[in-house]
Amino acid sequence: MSGTLYGIGLGPGDPELMTLKAARLIAGADVIAYPTLAGGTSFARAIAADHITAGTTEIVMDVPMTVDRAPAQAAYDTGATAIRAELDAGRDVVVLCEGDPFFYGSFMYLFARLKSDYAVEVVPGVTSVTTCAAAAGLPMAARNEVVTIIPAPQLVAQGALVPDESPTKVRQEADTLVIMKLGRHFDAVRTMISDAGLTEKAVYIERASTPDEVVLPLAEAPAKAPYFSMILIVKGADPWL
Amino acid sequence: MSGTLYGIGLGPGDPELMTLKAARLIAGADVIAYPTLAGGTSFARAIAADHITAGTTEIVMDVPMTVDRAPAQAAYDTGATAIRAELDAGRDVVVLCEGDPFFYGSFMYLFARLKSDYAVEVVPGVTSVTTCAAAAGLPMAARNEVVTIIPAPQLVAQGALVPDESPTKVRQEADTLVIMKLGRHFDAVRTMISDAGLTEKAVYIERASTPDEVVLPLAEAPAKAPYFSMILIVKGADPWL
Repeated sequence: MSGTLYGIGLGPGDPELMTLKAARLIAGADVIAYPTLAGGTSFARAIAADHITAGTTEIVMDVPMTVDRAPAQAAYDTGATAIRAELDAGRDVVVLCEGDPFFYGSFMYLFARLKSDYAVEVVPGVTSVTTCAAAAGLPMAARNEVVTIIPAPQLVAQGALVPDESPTKVRQEADTLVIMKLGRHFDAVRTMISDAGLTEKAVYIERASTPDEVVLPLAEAPAKAPYFSMILIVKGADPWL
Repeated sequence: MSGTLYGIGLGPGDPELMTLKAARLIAGADVIAYPTLAGGTSFARAIAADHITAGTTEIVMDVPMTVDRAPAQAAYDTGATAIRAELDAGRDVVVLCEGDPFFYGSFMYLFARLKSDYAVEVVPGVTSVTTCAAAAGLPMAARNEVVTIIPAPQLVAQGALVPDESPTKVRQEADTLVIMKLGRHFDAVRTMISDAGLTEKAVYIERASTPDEVVLPLAEAPAKAPYFSMILIVKGADPWL
Protein backbone atom coordinates (compact mmCIF):
# COMPACT_ATOMS: atom_id res chain seq x y z
CA MET A 1 0.00 0.00 0.00
CA SER A 2 1.70 3.20 -1.19
CA GLY A 3 1.73 6.39 0.85
CA THR A 4 -0.11 9.57 -0.11
CA LEU A 5 1.61 12.64 -1.50
CA TYR A 6 0.40 15.87 0.11
CA GLY A 7 1.10 19.26 -1.42
CA ILE A 8 0.31 21.75 1.30
CA GLY A 9 0.06 25.50 1.07
CA LEU A 10 1.79 27.31 3.93
CA GLY A 11 0.46 30.77 3.19
CA PRO A 12 2.40 33.93 2.41
CA GLY A 13 5.02 33.99 5.17
CA ASP A 14 3.48 34.70 8.56
CA PRO A 15 3.44 31.23 10.18
CA GLU A 16 0.06 32.10 11.71
CA LEU A 17 -1.44 32.38 8.23
CA MET A 18 -0.98 28.64 7.80
CA THR A 19 -4.20 26.61 7.88
CA LEU A 20 -5.07 24.30 10.74
CA LYS A 21 -4.94 21.42 8.26
CA ALA A 22 -1.43 22.27 7.10
CA ALA A 23 -0.24 22.50 10.69
CA ARG A 24 -1.78 19.11 11.52
CA LEU A 25 -0.29 17.40 8.48
CA ILE A 26 3.19 18.80 9.13
CA ALA A 27 3.10 17.79 12.78
CA GLY A 28 2.05 14.27 11.89
CA ALA A 29 4.33 13.78 8.92
CA ASP A 30 6.85 10.94 8.70
CA VAL A 31 8.49 12.67 5.76
CA ILE A 32 8.50 16.28 4.59
CA ALA A 33 10.01 17.62 1.37
CA TYR A 34 10.78 21.15 0.28
CA PRO A 35 12.93 23.12 -2.13
CA THR A 36 15.82 25.38 -1.31
CA LEU A 37 16.96 27.92 -3.83
CA ALA A 38 20.58 27.71 -4.87
CA GLY A 39 21.75 26.23 -1.60
CA GLY A 40 20.15 28.91 0.55
CA THR A 41 17.75 28.40 3.40
CA SER A 42 14.19 27.30 2.67
CA PHE A 43 11.49 29.92 3.14
CA ALA A 44 8.91 27.14 3.15
CA ARG A 45 10.69 25.23 5.92
CA ALA A 46 11.02 28.44 7.95
CA ILE A 47 7.28 29.06 7.77
CA ALA A 48 6.56 25.50 8.88
CA ALA A 49 9.35 25.19 11.45
CA ASP A 50 7.23 25.36 14.62
CA HIS A 51 5.21 22.33 13.54
CA ILE A 52 7.99 20.00 12.39
CA THR A 53 8.53 17.29 15.00
CA ALA A 54 11.74 15.54 15.96
CA GLY A 55 12.48 12.47 13.89
CA THR A 56 10.75 13.70 10.75
CA THR A 57 12.66 12.70 7.63
CA GLU A 58 13.45 15.73 5.43
CA ILE A 59 13.93 15.57 1.68
CA VAL A 60 15.65 18.75 0.51
CA MET A 61 15.55 19.66 -3.17
CA ASP A 62 18.27 22.13 -4.00
CA VAL A 63 16.96 24.02 -7.02
CA PRO A 64 19.50 26.08 -8.98
CA MET A 65 18.31 29.52 -10.07
CA THR A 66 19.44 29.54 -13.68
CA VAL A 67 17.84 30.85 -16.85
CA ASP A 68 18.32 27.43 -18.39
CA ARG A 69 15.57 25.33 -16.85
CA ALA A 70 17.25 21.95 -17.26
CA PRO A 71 19.22 22.06 -13.98
CA ALA A 72 16.10 22.94 -11.98
CA GLN A 73 14.14 20.18 -13.68
CA ALA A 74 16.95 17.75 -12.87
CA ALA A 75 16.65 18.78 -9.22
CA TYR A 76 12.92 17.97 -9.30
CA ASP A 77 13.72 14.64 -10.96
CA THR A 78 16.07 13.81 -8.11
CA GLY A 79 13.51 14.97 -5.53
CA ALA A 80 10.74 12.96 -7.15
CA THR A 81 12.87 9.85 -7.05
CA ALA A 82 13.52 10.28 -3.33
CA ILE A 83 9.81 10.92 -2.72
CA ARG A 84 8.88 7.81 -4.72
CA ALA A 85 11.05 5.68 -2.46
CA GLU A 86 9.15 6.91 0.61
CA LEU A 87 5.73 6.53 -0.98
CA ASP A 88 6.59 3.04 -2.21
CA ALA A 89 7.57 2.14 1.36
CA GLY A 90 4.07 3.14 2.46
CA ARG A 91 4.98 6.45 4.04
CA ASP A 92 3.08 9.65 3.34
CA VAL A 93 5.14 12.58 2.11
CA VAL A 94 4.17 16.17 2.87
CA VAL A 95 5.57 18.72 0.43
CA LEU A 96 5.87 22.21 1.91
CA CYS A 97 4.78 24.98 -0.48
CA GLU A 98 4.87 28.73 0.06
CA GLY A 99 1.48 30.29 -0.64
CA ASP A 100 -0.78 27.84 -2.46
CA PRO A 101 0.61 24.72 -4.22
CA PHE A 102 -1.29 25.30 -7.48
CA PHE A 103 -0.91 29.08 -7.69
CA TYR A 104 2.47 29.86 -9.28
CA GLY A 105 4.03 27.20 -7.09
CA SER A 106 6.81 24.74 -7.76
CA PHE A 107 4.71 21.85 -6.44
CA MET A 108 3.37 21.41 -9.95
CA TYR A 109 6.73 19.96 -10.99
CA LEU A 110 6.45 17.17 -8.46
CA PHE A 111 2.74 16.77 -9.20
CA ALA A 112 3.49 16.25 -12.91
CA ARG A 113 6.04 13.57 -12.09
CA LEU A 114 4.06 11.66 -9.47
CA LYS A 115 0.33 12.13 -10.01
CA SER A 116 -0.10 9.09 -12.25
CA ASP A 117 1.35 6.66 -9.75
CA TYR A 118 0.23 7.84 -6.31
CA ALA A 119 -2.71 9.28 -4.42
CA VAL A 120 -2.22 13.05 -4.21
CA GLU A 121 -4.01 15.53 -1.98
CA VAL A 122 -3.51 19.26 -2.40
CA VAL A 123 -4.26 21.52 0.57
CA PRO A 124 -4.85 25.10 -0.57
CA GLY A 125 -3.20 27.99 1.22
CA VAL A 126 -3.55 31.74 1.59
CA THR A 127 -1.98 33.39 -1.46
CA SER A 128 0.25 36.44 -1.53
CA VAL A 129 -2.40 38.21 -3.62
CA THR A 130 -5.10 38.55 -0.98
CA THR A 131 -2.41 39.01 1.66
CA CYS A 132 -1.16 42.07 -0.21
CA ALA A 133 -4.70 43.39 -0.52
CA ALA A 134 -5.15 42.99 3.23
CA ALA A 135 -1.82 44.69 3.95
CA ALA A 136 -2.73 47.59 1.67
CA GLY A 137 -6.26 47.95 3.02
CA LEU A 138 -7.62 47.53 -0.52
CA PRO A 139 -10.77 45.49 -1.14
CA MET A 140 -9.57 43.91 -4.38
CA ALA A 141 -12.74 42.46 -5.85
CA ALA A 142 -16.36 43.41 -5.33
CA ARG A 143 -19.53 42.03 -6.80
CA ASN A 144 -19.02 41.50 -10.55
CA GLU A 145 -15.59 43.03 -10.92
CA VAL A 146 -13.00 41.33 -13.08
CA VAL A 147 -9.56 40.53 -11.66
CA THR A 148 -6.54 39.85 -13.85
CA ILE A 149 -3.31 38.46 -12.44
CA ILE A 150 -0.29 38.86 -14.68
CA PRO A 151 3.38 38.14 -14.02
CA ALA A 152 5.62 41.07 -14.93
CA PRO A 153 7.72 39.15 -17.50
CA GLN A 154 4.57 38.43 -19.51
CA LEU A 155 3.38 42.02 -19.21
CA VAL A 156 6.72 43.34 -20.40
CA ALA A 157 6.81 40.83 -23.27
CA GLN A 158 3.46 42.21 -24.42
CA GLY A 159 4.85 45.70 -24.49
CA ALA A 160 2.33 48.01 -22.82
CA LEU A 161 -0.34 48.11 -20.20
CA VAL A 162 -3.06 49.85 -22.14
CA PRO A 163 -2.53 49.98 -25.89
CA ASP A 164 -5.65 50.56 -27.92
CA GLU A 165 -5.74 47.60 -30.22
CA SER A 166 -3.21 45.17 -28.93
CA PRO A 167 -3.74 41.88 -27.14
CA THR A 168 -2.94 43.63 -23.90
CA LYS A 169 -6.22 45.45 -24.12
CA VAL A 170 -7.15 42.92 -21.46
CA ARG A 171 -5.23 44.94 -18.97
CA GLN A 172 -7.45 47.92 -19.49
CA GLU A 173 -10.61 45.96 -19.02
CA ALA A 174 -9.90 44.37 -15.70
CA ASP A 175 -11.21 46.25 -12.69
CA THR A 176 -8.30 45.02 -10.63
CA LEU A 177 -4.82 44.23 -11.85
CA VAL A 178 -2.32 42.17 -9.90
CA ILE A 179 1.21 42.35 -11.28
CA MET A 180 3.46 39.69 -9.80
CA LYS A 181 7.13 38.70 -10.08
CA LEU A 182 8.43 42.24 -10.50
CA GLY A 183 12.15 41.62 -10.01
CA ARG A 184 14.24 42.96 -12.87
CA HIS A 185 11.13 44.04 -14.77
CA PHE A 186 10.18 46.58 -12.12
CA ASP A 187 11.36 49.65 -14.04
CA ALA A 188 9.63 48.61 -17.24
CA VAL A 189 6.40 47.87 -15.37
CA ARG A 190 6.50 51.23 -13.60
CA THR A 191 6.88 53.00 -16.92
CA MET A 192 3.95 51.06 -18.39
CA ILE A 193 1.74 51.94 -15.44
CA SER A 194 2.72 55.58 -15.73
CA ASP A 195 2.05 55.59 -19.47
CA ALA A 196 -1.40 54.20 -18.75
CA GLY A 197 -2.12 56.95 -16.24
CA LEU A 198 -2.57 54.47 -13.43
CA THR A 199 0.31 55.35 -11.10
CA GLU A 200 -1.97 57.05 -8.60
CA LYS A 201 -4.04 53.91 -8.22
CA ALA A 202 -1.04 51.59 -7.92
CA VAL A 203 0.18 50.24 -4.60
CA TYR A 204 3.50 48.46 -4.13
CA ILE A 205 3.69 45.67 -1.55
CA GLU A 206 6.78 43.69 -0.58
CA ARG A 207 7.06 40.61 1.69
CA ALA A 208 3.46 40.89 2.87
CA SER A 209 2.70 39.43 6.31
CA THR A 210 6.38 39.16 7.28
CA PRO A 211 8.27 41.45 9.70
CA ASP A 212 9.86 43.07 6.62
CA GLU A 213 6.54 43.99 5.01
CA VAL A 214 6.54 47.19 2.94
CA VAL A 215 3.38 48.93 1.66
CA LEU A 216 3.83 52.11 -0.35
CA PRO A 217 2.16 54.09 -3.10
CA LEU A 218 3.95 53.00 -6.27
CA ALA A 219 5.29 56.52 -6.73
CA GLU A 220 7.20 56.13 -3.45
CA ALA A 221 8.41 52.57 -3.98
CA PRO A 222 12.14 51.78 -3.77
CA ALA A 223 14.24 51.44 -6.91
CA LYS A 224 14.63 47.68 -6.63
CA ALA A 225 11.88 45.15 -6.07
CA PRO A 226 12.62 41.71 -4.59
CA TYR A 227 11.00 38.53 -5.91
CA PHE A 228 8.41 38.64 -3.13
CA SER A 229 6.74 41.85 -4.22
CA MET A 230 3.76 42.86 -6.32
CA ILE A 231 1.74 45.82 -7.52
CA LEU A 232 -2.00 46.06 -6.97
CA ILE A 233 -4.08 48.38 -9.09
CA VAL A 234 -7.70 48.57 -7.97
CA LYS A 235 -9.53 50.60 -10.58
CA GLY A 236 -13.04 49.61 -9.59
CA ALA A 237 -15.22 52.67 -9.33
CA ASP A 238 -17.58 50.80 -7.07
CA PRO A 239 -18.05 52.79 -3.88
CA TRP A 240 -18.66 49.60 -1.89
CA LEU A 241 -21.73 51.15 -0.39
CA MET B 1 -9.25 53.88 23.63
CA SER B 2 -11.38 52.35 20.89
CA GLY B 3 -11.28 48.68 20.03
CA THR B 4 -9.92 47.24 16.79
CA LEU B 5 -12.08 45.93 13.97
CA TYR B 6 -10.86 42.60 12.57
CA GLY B 7 -12.10 41.26 9.26
CA ILE B 8 -11.02 37.66 9.22
CA GLY B 9 -11.14 35.18 6.35
CA LEU B 10 -12.42 31.76 7.36
CA GLY B 11 -11.52 29.97 4.15
CA PRO B 12 -13.81 28.12 1.75
CA GLY B 13 -15.88 25.95 4.06
CA ASP B 14 -13.79 23.17 5.61
CA PRO B 15 -13.19 24.46 9.15
CA GLU B 16 -9.66 23.02 8.96
CA LEU B 17 -8.85 25.41 6.12
CA MET B 18 -9.09 28.32 8.54
CA THR B 19 -5.77 29.93 9.45
CA LEU B 20 -4.22 29.60 12.87
CA LYS B 21 -4.58 33.36 13.23
CA ALA B 22 -8.30 33.33 12.49
CA ALA B 23 -8.83 30.53 15.01
CA ARG B 24 -6.90 32.44 17.67
CA LEU B 25 -8.78 35.68 17.09
CA ILE B 26 -12.17 33.97 17.17
CA ALA B 27 -11.35 32.11 20.38
CA GLY B 28 -10.21 35.31 22.06
CA ALA B 29 -12.95 37.58 20.78
CA ASP B 30 -15.22 39.53 23.09
CA VAL B 31 -17.51 40.26 20.18
CA ILE B 32 -18.03 38.54 16.85
CA ALA B 33 -20.20 39.77 13.98
CA TYR B 34 -21.42 37.98 10.87
CA PRO B 35 -24.12 38.14 8.22
CA THR B 36 -26.98 35.74 7.71
CA LEU B 37 -28.74 35.66 4.40
CA ALA B 38 -32.47 36.26 4.52
CA GLY B 39 -32.90 34.88 8.00
CA GLY B 40 -31.14 31.62 7.28
CA THR B 41 -28.22 30.14 9.14
CA SER B 42 -24.81 31.71 8.78
CA PHE B 43 -22.27 29.73 6.75
CA ALA B 44 -19.53 31.90 8.24
CA ARG B 45 -20.60 31.13 11.80
CA ALA B 46 -20.82 27.41 11.01
CA ILE B 47 -17.22 27.39 9.75
CA ALA B 48 -16.05 29.19 12.89
CA ALA B 49 -18.28 27.36 15.38
CA ASP B 50 -15.64 25.17 17.05
CA HIS B 51 -13.61 28.21 18.08
CA ILE B 52 -16.38 30.45 19.45
CA THR B 53 -16.22 30.49 23.23
CA ALA B 54 -19.05 30.78 25.74
CA GLY B 55 -19.92 34.35 26.61
CA THR B 56 -18.88 35.82 23.28
CA THR B 57 -21.26 38.58 22.21
CA GLU B 58 -22.66 37.96 18.73
CA ILE B 59 -23.82 40.69 16.35
CA VAL B 60 -25.95 39.16 13.62
CA MET B 61 -26.60 41.12 10.45
CA ASP B 62 -29.61 39.75 8.64
CA VAL B 63 -29.03 40.66 4.99
CA PRO B 64 -32.04 40.41 2.67
CA MET B 65 -31.33 38.86 -0.72
CA THR B 66 -33.10 41.31 -2.97
CA VAL B 67 -32.25 42.74 -6.37
CA ASP B 68 -32.73 46.19 -4.92
CA ARG B 69 -29.59 46.79 -2.90
CA ALA B 70 -31.03 49.33 -0.48
CA PRO B 71 -32.37 46.80 2.06
CA ALA B 72 -29.02 44.99 2.22
CA GLN B 73 -27.20 48.29 2.63
CA ALA B 74 -29.59 49.20 5.43
CA ALA B 75 -28.71 45.91 7.14
CA TYR B 76 -25.02 46.82 6.97
CA ASP B 77 -25.84 50.28 8.34
CA THR B 78 -27.54 48.68 11.31
CA GLY B 79 -24.68 46.23 11.77
CA ALA B 80 -22.09 49.00 11.57
CA THR B 81 -23.92 50.96 14.25
CA ALA B 82 -23.91 47.96 16.60
CA ILE B 83 -20.22 47.36 15.90
CA ARG B 84 -19.43 51.05 16.54
CA ALA B 85 -20.97 50.80 19.98
CA GLU B 86 -18.65 47.90 20.88
CA LEU B 87 -15.55 49.56 19.41
CA ASP B 88 -16.35 52.82 21.21
CA ALA B 89 -16.58 50.86 24.45
CA GLY B 90 -13.02 49.64 23.86
CA ARG B 91 -13.89 46.12 22.78
CA ASP B 92 -12.40 44.49 19.68
CA VAL B 93 -14.88 43.16 17.14
CA VAL B 94 -14.08 40.16 14.95
CA VAL B 95 -16.10 39.99 11.73
CA LEU B 96 -16.39 36.46 10.33
CA CYS B 97 -15.98 36.29 6.55
CA GLU B 98 -16.25 33.26 4.27
CA GLY B 99 -13.18 32.91 2.07
CA ASP B 100 -11.12 36.10 2.15
CA PRO B 101 -12.56 39.43 3.38
CA PHE B 102 -11.34 41.48 0.39
CA PHE B 103 -12.04 38.92 -2.34
CA TYR B 104 -15.71 39.24 -3.34
CA GLY B 105 -16.63 39.46 0.31
CA SER B 106 -19.28 41.44 2.12
CA PHE B 107 -16.76 42.71 4.66
CA MET B 108 -16.05 45.61 2.34
CA TYR B 109 -19.42 47.10 3.27
CA LEU B 110 -18.46 47.30 6.92
CA PHE B 111 -14.93 48.39 6.01
CA ALA B 112 -16.31 51.30 3.98
CA ARG B 113 -18.44 52.41 6.90
CA LEU B 114 -15.87 52.06 9.68
CA LYS B 115 -12.36 52.40 8.29
CA SER B 116 -12.12 56.15 8.81
CA ASP B 117 -12.89 55.99 12.51
CA TYR B 118 -11.25 52.82 13.83
CA ALA B 119 -8.13 50.69 13.55
CA VAL B 120 -8.88 47.85 11.14
CA GLU B 121 -6.91 44.67 10.56
CA VAL B 122 -7.76 42.30 7.74
CA VAL B 123 -6.66 38.68 8.03
CA PRO B 124 -6.56 37.01 4.62
CA GLY B 125 -8.08 33.58 4.10
CA VAL B 126 -7.96 30.71 1.64
CA THR B 127 -10.17 31.58 -1.32
CA SER B 128 -12.60 29.31 -3.12
CA VAL B 129 -10.53 29.75 -6.28
CA THR B 130 -7.44 27.86 -5.21
CA THR B 131 -9.62 25.46 -3.23
CA CYS B 132 -11.42 24.54 -6.45
CA ALA B 133 -8.11 24.09 -8.26
CA ALA B 134 -6.95 21.76 -5.48
CA ALA B 135 -10.22 19.80 -5.59
CA ALA B 136 -9.98 19.46 -9.36
CA GLY B 137 -6.29 18.51 -9.33
CA LEU B 138 -5.57 21.40 -11.69
CA PRO B 139 -2.45 23.51 -11.28
CA MET B 140 -4.10 26.82 -12.14
CA ALA B 141 -1.15 29.14 -12.72
CA ALA B 142 2.41 28.37 -13.70
CA ARG B 143 5.38 30.62 -14.31
CA ASN B 144 4.23 33.59 -16.41
CA GLU B 145 0.67 32.52 -17.10
CA VAL B 146 -2.14 35.05 -16.89
CA VAL B 147 -5.20 34.35 -14.74
CA THR B 148 -8.50 36.14 -15.20
CA ILE B 149 -11.30 35.88 -12.66
CA ILE B 150 -14.70 36.94 -13.92
CA PRO B 151 -18.12 36.69 -12.27
CA ALA B 152 -20.70 35.10 -14.56
CA PRO B 153 -23.09 38.10 -14.58
CA GLN B 154 -20.31 40.27 -16.02
CA LEU B 155 -19.35 37.63 -18.59
CA VAL B 156 -22.95 37.28 -19.73
CA ALA B 157 -23.37 41.06 -19.91
CA GLN B 158 -20.40 41.17 -22.27
CA GLY B 159 -22.02 38.65 -24.52
CA ALA B 160 -19.44 36.05 -25.48
CA LEU B 161 -16.34 34.34 -24.24
CA VAL B 162 -14.18 34.68 -27.32
CA PRO B 163 -15.38 37.19 -29.87
CA ASP B 164 -12.72 38.43 -32.27
CA GLU B 165 -12.80 42.15 -31.73
CA SER B 166 -14.88 42.79 -28.69
CA PRO B 167 -13.83 43.91 -25.25
CA THR B 168 -14.16 40.32 -24.10
CA LYS B 169 -11.07 39.43 -26.09
CA VAL B 170 -9.56 39.42 -22.64
CA ARG B 171 -11.13 36.07 -22.01
CA GLN B 172 -9.26 34.53 -24.91
CA GLU B 173 -5.92 35.81 -23.79
CA ALA B 174 -5.87 34.52 -20.26
CA ASP B 175 -4.19 31.17 -19.79
CA THR B 176 -6.58 30.36 -16.97
CA LEU B 177 -10.16 31.51 -16.61
CA VAL B 178 -12.08 31.39 -13.36
CA ILE B 179 -15.80 31.96 -13.79
CA MET B 180 -17.53 32.61 -10.48
CA LYS B 181 -21.10 33.22 -9.31
CA LEU B 182 -22.73 30.92 -11.86
CA GLY B 183 -26.25 30.70 -10.41
CA ARG B 184 -28.92 31.65 -12.92
CA HIS B 185 -26.30 32.47 -15.56
CA PHE B 186 -25.07 28.89 -15.71
CA ASP B 187 -26.80 27.97 -18.97
CA ALA B 188 -25.62 31.10 -20.75
CA VAL B 189 -22.06 30.56 -19.54
CA ARG B 190 -22.09 26.95 -20.68
CA THR B 191 -23.19 28.00 -24.13
CA MET B 192 -20.47 30.63 -24.31
CA ILE B 193 -17.82 28.11 -23.32
CA SER B 194 -19.11 25.66 -25.90
CA ASP B 195 -19.13 28.36 -28.59
CA ALA B 196 -15.53 29.10 -27.74
CA GLY B 197 -14.56 25.45 -28.12
CA LEU B 198 -13.42 25.24 -24.51
CA THR B 199 -15.88 22.75 -23.02
CA GLU B 200 -13.31 19.95 -22.92
CA LYS B 201 -10.97 22.08 -20.83
CA ALA B 202 -13.68 23.26 -18.43
CA VAL B 203 -14.16 21.76 -14.98
CA TYR B 204 -17.19 22.43 -12.78
CA ILE B 205 -16.69 22.58 -9.02
CA GLU B 206 -19.38 23.03 -6.39
CA ARG B 207 -19.02 23.56 -2.62
CA ALA B 208 -15.29 22.83 -2.67
CA SER B 209 -13.80 21.50 0.58
CA THR B 210 -17.21 20.70 2.11
CA PRO B 211 -18.80 17.24 2.48
CA ASP B 212 -21.04 18.15 -0.47
CA GLU B 213 -18.15 18.90 -2.83
CA VAL B 214 -18.78 18.11 -6.50
CA VAL B 215 -16.05 18.04 -9.18
CA LEU B 216 -17.11 17.18 -12.72
CA PRO B 217 -16.13 17.86 -16.31
CA LEU B 218 -18.38 20.71 -17.38
CA ALA B 219 -20.04 18.45 -19.94
CA GLU B 220 -21.30 16.28 -17.06
CA ALA B 221 -22.29 19.07 -14.68
CA PRO B 222 -25.84 19.19 -13.30
CA ALA B 223 -28.46 21.47 -14.81
CA LYS B 224 -28.50 23.90 -11.90
CA ALA B 225 -25.50 25.50 -10.23
CA PRO B 226 -25.70 26.82 -6.66
CA TYR B 227 -24.11 30.11 -5.63
CA PHE B 228 -21.06 28.28 -4.27
CA SER B 229 -19.88 26.91 -7.60
CA MET B 230 -17.43 27.89 -10.29
CA ILE B 231 -15.90 26.83 -13.57
CA LEU B 232 -12.14 26.56 -14.05
CA ILE B 233 -10.67 26.58 -17.54
CA VAL B 234 -6.94 25.94 -17.55
CA LYS B 235 -5.79 26.51 -21.10
CA GLY B 236 -2.07 26.79 -20.39
CA ALA B 237 -0.15 24.61 -22.76
CA ASP B 238 2.72 24.51 -20.34
CA PRO B 239 3.59 20.89 -19.64
CA TRP B 240 4.80 21.75 -16.12
CA LEU B 241 7.96 19.81 -16.76
